[in-house]
Amino acid sequence: MKTEKTAISPKRHEDYPEWYQQVIKMSDLAESSPVRGCMVIKPWGYALWENIREILDGMFKETGVKNAYFPVFIPKRFLEKEAEHVEGFAKECAVVTHHRLEATEDGRLVPAGELEEPLVVRPTSETIIGESFSRWVSSHRDLPLLINQWCNVVRWEMRPRIFLRTSEFLWQEGHTAHADRREAMERTLQMLNIYEDLVQNHLAIPVIKGEKTESERFPGAVNTFTLEAMMQDRKALQAGTSHFLGRNFARASDIKYQSVKEKQEYAWTTSWGVSTRLIGAMIMAHSDDNGLILPPMIASAHVVLMPIIKKPEDKSPVMDYTHGLAQELKKLEYNGRNIKVEIDDRQTGGKGWDWIKKGIPLRVEIGPRDIAKDSVFIGRRDKGPREKESIPRSGFVNTVVSILNEIQKNLFNRALQLREDYTTQIDLRDDFYAFFTPKDLEKSEIHGGFALAHWCGRHQCEEKTKDDLKVTIRCIPFAEETESGTCIICNDKSTKRVLFAKAY
Amino acid sequence: MKTEKTAISPKRHEDYPEWYQQVIKMSDLAESSPVRGCMVIKPWGYALWENIREILDGMFKETGVKNAYFPVFIPKRFLEKEAEHVEGFAKECAVVTHHRLEATEDGRLVPAGELEEPLVVRPTSETIIGESFSRWVSSHRDLPLLINQWCNVVRWEMRPRIFLRTSEFLWQEGHTAHADRREAMERTLQMLNIYEDLVQNHLAIPVIKGEKTESERFPGAVNTFTLEAMMQDRKALQAGTSHFLGRNFARASDIKYQSVKEKQEYAWTTSWGVSTRLIGAMIMAHSDDNGLILPPMIASAHVVLMPIIKKPEDKSPVMDYTHGLAQELKKLEYNGRNIKVEIDDRQTGGKGWDWIKKGIPLRVEIGPRDIAKDSVFIGRRDKGPREKESIPRSGFVNTVVSILNEIQKNLFNRALQLREDYTTQIDLRDDFYAFFTPKDLEKSEIHGGFALAHWCGRHQCEEKTKDDLKVTIRCIPFAEETESGTCIICNDKSTKRVLFAKAY
Repeated sequence: MKTEKTAISPKRHEDYPEWYQQVIKMSDLAESSPVRGCMVIKPWGYALWENIREILDGMFKETGVKNAYFPVFIPKRFLEKEAEHVEGFAKECAVVTHHRLEATEDGRLVPAGELEEPLVVRPTSETIIGESFSRWVSSHRDLPLLINQWCNVVRWEMRPRIFLRTSEFLWQEGHTAHADRREAMERTLQMLNIYEDLVQNHLAIPVIKGEKTESERFPGAVNTFTLEAMMQDRKALQAGTSHFLGRNFARASDIKYQSVKEKQEYAWTTSWGVSTRLIGAMIMAHSDDNGLILPPMIASAHVVLMPIIKKPEDKSPVMDYTHGLAQELKKLEYNGRNIKVEIDDRQTGGKGWDWIKKGIPLRVEIGPRDIAKDSVFIGRRDKGPREKESIPRSGFVNTVVSILNEIQKNLFNRALQLREDYTTQIDLRDDFYAFFTPKDLEKSEIHGGFALAHWCGRHQCEEKTKDDLKVTIRCIPFAEETESGTCIICNDKSTKRVLFAKAY
Repeated sequence: MKTEKTAISPKRHEDYPEWYQQVIKMSDLAESSPVRGCMVIKPWGYALWENIREILDGMFKETGVKNAYFPVFIPKRFLEKEAEHVEGFAKECAVVTHHRLEATEDGRLVPAGELEEPLVVRPTSETIIGESFSRWVSSHRDLPLLINQWCNVVRWEMRPRIFLRTSEFLWQEGHTAHADRREAMERTLQMLNIYEDLVQNHLAIPVIKGEKTESERFPGAVNTFTLEAMMQDRKALQAGTSHFLGRNFARASDIKYQSVKEKQEYAWTTSWGVSTRLIGAMIMAHSDDNGLILPPMIASAHVVLMPIIKKPEDKSPVMDYTHGLAQELKKLEYNGRNIKVEIDDRQTGGKGWDWIKKGIPLRVEIGPRDIAKDSVFIGRRDKGPREKESIPRSGFVNTVVSILNEIQKNLFNRALQLREDYTTQIDLRDDFYAFFTPKDLEKSEIHGGFALAHWCGRHQCEEKTKDDLKVTIRCIPFAEETESGTCIICNDKSTKRVLFAKAY
């Protein structure tokens, strides 16, 4: 295999974590900020979040969910209401202790106006939203209550990694309350299905749906359901979670209603969320050694037009042609919004490569020769950087939507192929250890993949794979059939395979 | 005048501040939270913010502005970079000093993990965005840089008032950098004009555009431009501001570029913002003693259909008719989005009043008699609660958009009439004092209104009206012609009238 020079250095197989950082940098998606663990999401990256938000928000509202907004600060006593919950979040939260800065005699500014009770910047809002719910709900007629909030949250992060693990991130958190256990469970799974729709059909990432084991559950939840996706380094990334909270938070927050039989009952609640982490998943699922690859359905822009002007007299006809084409393309609809077109009229070399690195689905070069033929010269991001072709302008306009659909499909299929190639059923402990202990790939941090293996259900076996191999149970997949087998660690009886992997 | 019973108690003229709180409560817009000074924005209120955001966001993007996201935390040293700025914001900020909560021996949770440098929860983001800009800008080719962020901000508030003054609020903050002074000033005014468009044409609130005096400027700005609106208690409310920052923040944040002449120059910057305060303005500009009145162009919903079912056999035909009408209405477009329809099928008394209090523009009752005539019985929120009329269903569907436009226009005209009725040119100091010292209206907190009076330009005269009357200069209106006169306080020469008022 000849080594071709690529736009991103290092390549994926050379140093995957560093490749990831470089893809983000070269595509201008985001950057680290001087505030420890916090990121700046730049316009090209924020547009992805806007698109994700718009798609999800529409899907939520169709199921009757309404948006609201709750305080960013949570009084310490609220967090303490649910024992597991505080345990889970107290270790990594931003604590506000003062409400002013005051100058000292030597001119420094120091915190002043100490608060009677410290406030925590929300790491998640079950407790503060629960307080409102306790006032909003009094009768079974007030239920179900279906609320969502788009906001920022903070979980202090010692080893930040842009989009994947940041001290502050953006997300949505849905919170619902129900009079009926079954209805609450249905809602939990309904929202998981909405996430699956988003991630598979819009982000082009195949996912495995399943339930988390007890040790991986959301602190305070009865059941946590998850979507697990495989990244190109074959590690798993959790792409969305939905929690059935039972009556734990309703008890903690006193969310009670009078039932049809006029009895006071605690409500059943759920919560569910996805975050800007999805952007990290999308980068790691699709991008290549030339940079970012954006799935057309959520791309920040779909097409870049690059007028090529070599002689001054070409400028006016080339620019007219370019703007005319842009107008035509912008009128077309794709995935519920108009096609977004960028015009890059910088007359510098390498601008084609800039857009390859930014992952735009389609690049179109327009020069005097193209105009003479009334054609355009196009490059697709799902093909090689030099695989370009000249097609008639009208043909391009008529097929651009189907080309975008084709790119979308190709990205999904590639990601699915990767997952299928690196997912294995394993039945022997030695094979399991070998699968997760790669030899020559050590340096590249590329590991075995997904292993479907039997597990007895005991926490200590889960701990063992974690301690020995840094491998965890990502989920108990819904799709796995019941079958008899023996635990990959302790050899005890098991009835179902679970999904083991290293994870982000 | 006969006293009619109204839905809100007290009435506006009885106790305006309490009326305001009651309108918010009865319309279910928002509520105070247990977190001091922070509010919970409920779905009916949040929908208004979503509509405002969508309208503004579209207008921003048309002018080339792109959205991004910056950290919620600002290191203390950043805030300190601009002297006036830190002075303005240090007194009222939330300070994060620790990054964890830890259990003590007696089981209490206390802040732990003290930060080396305290972080401030952003009160505004000039300094943290400036730090990014300093890295993003190096050449004149990188300018202009046109960035906006939708986010939450915190300014500690000792006397909170829902929507108007809250410790946390939602807003957008635009930040731009330019190579050219004139261009930066044009951008500052362009954004003020966009706010004017939003407030006048969508929120139906007439505004006076002008410049703030030095003492009312944004801390660190060279010029602050503002929109001032009159509320029904005749006080002024600032409905949006746009700041020309000169090179102050560019110097503080080191935003430099190489000019065409290859010289290192500081950029010229601007910032501009509107917040959830606009919802407070809208409530106080339009609502009446029966509750909220929503301008149709930003209403959370436009029409409520209320099926009236007195006999069981009516249920099916009435509900079918209602759903059919809803489907027809939802297909219609109004102000760039589809008409939003609520169906209220609760069979309880007083639901018409619930929707009056919630301010929905149109209420439609549908009973068996209406169906027999193929007509609907409609009530408009800009008319009296009992002024309802029966109109043919097809006529209603065909005219609903123009009815909404008419309501929108009526609300604007009413607010304009109020402002004109209570805006006076005043030339004598005694008249000025009398205008702002109402006698019998004292208790109701309803004051004189807007006074256009001459001012010499000296800070001490401004301070005098503030100390004596709690009256401030709201702005130096653009529309006021130059004319010679004498300062209303000191009698010195003046060349222009300025706008005096009590203010929120």
